[in-house]
Amino acid sequence: MSGEPCPACSKQWPADTQRIVDCGTSVAYLHDDQFFAGWTVLVLKRHATELWQLDQAERSLLIEEVTRVARAVATAFGAVKMNYELLGNQIAHIHWHLIPRPAADPAPRQPIWTVAHEPRRLPAGEFAARIALIRSQLGA
Amino acid sequence: MSGEPCPACSKQWPADTQRIVDCGTSVAYLHDDQFFAGWTVLVLKRHATELWQLDQAERSLLIEEVTRVARAVATAFGAVKMNYELLGNQIAHIHWHLIPRPAADPAPRQPIWTVAHEPRRLPAGEFAARIALIRSQLGA
Repeated sequence: MSGEPCPACSKQWPADTQRIVDCGTSVAYLHDDQFFAGWTVLVLKRHATELWQLDQAERSLLIEEVTRVARAVATAFGAVKMNYELLGNQIAHIHWHLIPRPAADPAPRQPIWTVAHEPRRLPAGEFAARIALIRSQLGA
Repeated sequence: MSGEPCPACSKQWPADTQRIVDCGTSVAYLHDDQFFAGWTVLVLKRHATELWQLDQAERSLLIEEVTRVARAVATAFGAVKMNYELLGNQIAHIHWHLIPRPAADPAPRQPIWTVAHEPRRLPAGEFAARIALIRSQLGA
């Protein structure tokens, strides 16, 4: 990423069509790959790459937003377990993958990254319906 | 895990020899696979499986502990990026994988779970030295 603008800061990623809700310090987006139904990405508004670059109050707000969105997604999609991942290996800007693991998970004991699958791109209407479902759980 | 005791609550996992430090609401352990040097696991002391089962004050304390340990591990092992993962697919008891990604990472853009490798079990002395290095960074 040397010299290149941050895709999150320059609004290249995620796409506006993926936007679920503004959470305060972060914005929630539906992941474009919906193989795991409800897979959501929570993106910090300001640029930072590691948790220690935030101050304590900001971290506390952020983990509240992570928790609130994770719970809504879990309820909306009937998750038996949530996975919460802050990686940043491709886009270092702080963002959390919130992934509901369903009862019919193809590999319930494994991280999603080892579950080989074609990315599931939904038709626009179906994608928007999932966003609406999460918003409804959030009361947003 | 139906009917089986939680391995974290029954002290079967992690092993005492992996213990780095008591953080307050959690305990940090060095992961037994040291392929990624410094890979640490931060285990909540009480039993809970999802972030929303904690109260706000507890979540705030926990994310402070995650941050403090992640920073110490990153410094101790010269990480260019930290990965923070709360999964619970095999042991649902809340625990965070804190994984330093080094400059010489074999797959810097990928999650560690897709990096095929034999688990790296260190000789006891070398394992203890890594624990000591993290403790030293923590001032513990």
